[in-house]
Amino acid sequence: MTISKTNRLSLVEQVVSQIESLIESGEWKIGNQIPPEMDLIQQFDVSRNTLREAVRSLVYAGLLVTKQGKGTFVRSSSALGAAIERRIQQSSILETLEVRHALEREGAQLAALRRNQEDIEQLRFHISACSRAAESKDIKAYEEADIQLHKSIMVSSHNDLLIDLYEHMEHSLHESIHQIVEMSSDVNFHLNIHCKLIDAIIEQDVNRAIETVNEYIAQFKKSLE
Amino acid sequence: MTISKTNRLSLVEQVVSQIESLIESGEWKIGNQIPPEMDLIQQFDVSRNTLREAVRSLVYAGLLVTKQGKGTFVRSSSALGAAIERRIQQSSILETLEVRHALEREGAQLAALRRNQEDIEQLRFHISACSRAAESKDIKAYEEADIQLHKSIMVSSHNDLLIDLYEHMEHSLHESIHQIVEMSSDVNFHLNIHCKLIDAIIEQDVNRAIETVNEYIAQFKKSLE
Repeated sequence: MTISKTNRLSLVEQVVSQIESLIESGEWKIGNQIPPEMDLIQQFDVSRNTLREAVRSLVYAGLLVTKQGKGTFVRSSSALGAAIERRIQQSSILETLEVRHALEREGAQLAALRRNQEDIEQLRFHISACSRAAESKDIKAYEEADIQLHKSIMVSSHNDLLIDLYEHMEHSLHESIHQIVEMSSDVNFHLNIHCKLIDAIIEQDVNRAIETVNEYIAQFKKSLE
Repeated sequence: MTISKTNRLSLVEQVVSQIESLIESGEWKIGNQIPPEMDLIQQFDVSRNTLREAVRSLVYAGLLVTKQGKGTFVRSSSALGAAIERRIQQSSILETLEVRHALEREGAQLAALRRNQEDIEQLRFHISACSRAAESKDIKAYEEADIQLHKSIMVSSHNDLLIDLYEHMEHSLHESIHQIVEMSSDVNFHLNIHCKLIDAIIEQDVNRAIETVNEYIAQFKKSLE
């Protein structure tokens, strides 16, 4: 009795972790519907009950979401991402931005210390994309390039925990930010200060990197007021 | 058929959220065993299957943990806390410290801007406790007072998201830090620099607050090498 209970629990856990891997590897993409129940029962070679329990656990943890009458969809790529997303929904924009800025300041500082040749190439690639988007006044392309630029700064910090937290936070913030900040007016200020930041990181000038981050944060907070 | 399925799912979710409230409110304390299954079935007025599914969801989310042959225990006070804890277990001490420092730097800066009279009293209370513990060379008491001091700095930032992230991180870090850093040697340096930080926050000197945080971070990183 006890043994079969234990086995069943462990089967659910095995299915949960297999589904997690499928989501983390990108095989199951965020926003997509998951395969039909019967296919999954065959694929994992488990009972319907075991599969359903695994799916419910993942719904509760926020990786999957069940939409009534429509089916089950992939919602987030990790339990941490889902938990951060739910926590951020209860926070004000200002609170979230302050935490993001704390991570960006640390990221820029560590990037200036640790960036390698590959990082430098990525940073140059993304700042060029920002430049081109600004020149052609393509705000959508500019925003996308800006997100990629910030990610590449974080990657240059070589701190995986910092990179993860930032990506989950960035994802939740993106939509709300988009509604608030109309960048068209000072896209040139924004571009220039990011060019300065990338230069400081490449030249390994830690102090200038921090000063530059503080400068754009101050500017950004002013624009929110 | 569909309706009963929907109802059952929603019952599980209701039990999950009732248990979450019991944990968050502290009625179910971290480390304690949860009440017997039969009591919970009566308390929530649900079937054994519904209760078990709810418990499994909470185990998967990391709020509860099942220890084989012993029963189910409360593990974490929130899904965010549990997710951060699991993520930190995969990180190096240095990675975790760098993220914590990023949050501390932001916290000190915001505290210097926003601390109110009540915050000042709390900050003074905890720095005095640090002083007393240092004088009587009680390392255990000093560590505890230091944790409370850092929490009160965060509380003075008046950013709830920052406070939450920091507390979850602090909780995971505490045990590992304890093993690494023997504070006995430079407890006076540690105390002095924290006194300087609290003064800067009370006097609303943002720059001095940041400089002081950077100073103790640099010292701390050196001691890890």
